[in-house]
Amino acid sequence: MNTAFQKLTMINDAFVDRLEVSDRGLAFGDGLFETLRLSRGCAPLWNFHLDRLEVGCARLGIAVSRAHLDASFQRFVSAIPAETNAVLKLIVTRGSGGQGYRPLKTCSPTLIWQCLPLADTAHLARDGVVLHRCQLPIYPNPNLAGLKHLNRLDYVLAAKDLPEIPDIQGLLLDHKGNLLEAIHHNLFFVKDNVLMTPRMSEAGVKGVMRRVILERIAPACSLSVREDDFSVDALIQADEVFLSNSVRGIWPVKEFEQKSWAVPGIVTAQIQSQVEDIFTGMVVWQ
Amino acid sequence: MNTAFQKLTMINDAFVDRLEVSDRGLAFGDGLFETLRLSRGCAPLWNFHLDRLEVGCARLGIAVSRAHLDASFQRFVSAIPAETNAVLKLIVTRGSGGQGYRPLKTCSPTLIWQCLPLADTAHLARDGVVLHRCQLPIYPNPNLAGLKHLNRLDYVLAAKDLPEIPDIQGLLLDHKGNLLEAIHHNLFFVKDNVLMTPRMSEAGVKGVMRRVILERIAPACSLSVREDDFSVDALIQADEVFLSNSVRGIWPVKEFEQKSWAVPGIVTAQIQSQVEDIFTGMVVWQ
Repeated sequence: MNTAFQKLTMINDAFVDRLEVSDRGLAFGDGLFETLRLSRGCAPLWNFHLDRLEVGCARLGIAVSRAHLDASFQRFVSAIPAETNAVLKLIVTRGSGGQGYRPLKTCSPTLIWQCLPLADTAHLARDGVVLHRCQLPIYPNPNLAGLKHLNRLDYVLAAKDLPEIPDIQGLLLDHKGNLLEAIHHNLFFVKDNVLMTPRMSEAGVKGVMRRVILERIAPACSLSVREDDFSVDALIQADEVFLSNSVRGIWPVKEFEQKSWAVPGIVTAQIQSQVEDIFTGMVVWQ
Repeated sequence: MNTAFQKLTMINDAFVDRLEVSDRGLAFGDGLFETLRLSRGCAPLWNFHLDRLEVGCARLGIAVSRAHLDASFQRFVSAIPAETNAVLKLIVTRGSGGQGYRPLKTCSPTLIWQCLPLADTAHLARDGVVLHRCQLPIYPNPNLAGLKHLNRLDYVLAAKDLPEIPDIQGLLLDHKGNLLEAIHHNLFFVKDNVLMTPRMSEAGVKGVMRRVILERIAPACSLSVREDDFSVDALIQADEVFLSNSVRGIWPVKEFEQKSWAVPGIVTAQIQSQVEDIFTGMVVWQ
């Protein structure tokens, strides 16, 4: 199998893999990113990623249009063989220029695409993962909450100390000890048939799959939803727990500290099935 | 005058100016930086910058030795003509590799040097600057407080909305409305002959020049020092206010909102003179 495309990189319109060191993405983390699943050559949630990028660019004041982002996506995907399964990563930076932190109004954004291998994680979707409580809290920052921006040192530091075992995923708490998310996933749990998820108003990354679940899948499954602040105790008392990610889909949680769950739970299986339909193209949302 | 060296860039040992896009410095802001003043070919505070880098690398778990950093500095400076005045910027990233946020233990750090022009700011050191209160607060993050790390979006967003007038500098407050620092400088003020500066235990960048002032210049000038939490009112009631930066030196503040000061104040002038002696090599500290 020819896998050369799995290292394909495009910066703006050029298929190169090196970036000028003056770029503000490197200097200050001045930008955003997305990772999206390419399933048999299609990125079924691209429009949802575009929505988040538009919101993020507006909040950071990065001048790039939805049409420009979409044209860049189309150009990159057209260079990848049809029917490919892969992960596409897009970094959008403010570009180069400015006096230190202060950007020039004329900065021209940099779009960086990478095509990366899609790991086979079917066993984790089937058998579930263990949640491990990270010691490092994530502090609130309403300036940036919800965005998938490039300032991710807190997540790196939290991840650094995790045991290197593939089925262990890190649970992040906020500074008050409330649930926030998992390191690479959003966190959901079910109690008495209500789907619960942290509201993430002051910190964390609001995932594309989180939005799909809340806005599309939960209504389709007639599930009540509650976004709120939750304690660790609420998690331990849950009937089911699962993690969501727009590349990896839905992973049931089988264990957290003293508690274990049979996986997948009924609601988790329902949501997994809906997500599978998205990835296989059986359901298309725009 | 040949100024080609002012665009000189070195990545690890190679004089190139483009970085692999897989570098974690770009992906996650996973690294640190320093900007240092090269005065007539010498960087008088390099050992202080090294101290801060060592502390930062230890806190982030980036494996790079002082000897390696110093050898890299020597190699870069030897490529710059003698007697040059410039700004040297060093970015130290964790390098490439890892599973998403979780770094590999074997990551090999990337050292990126840039030689940039040193702006002539003598008029600001002489005539002073105006402080402008930034609307965006800087939220506490004890995980990263004090470090000059690459996660600087808060500073970019605060700087973005400043008026584009050279002598206006942005004053950053914390989430409680207390003084923190200026966008590119640390903040000092004098009241009844005591030198005051925010203690910065939960946010902000503890500058090299700040340390030099607190540990070397203040004792040499028999000045009492107080690091504490201060309100904006304390600033308005100050006898003198100034900003410190290891490249730009000391800039007196001549105006903040309804208050103005004759510049430089007596203590400010004393400290400016000591800093000038450092930059001109008349005082050497190791």
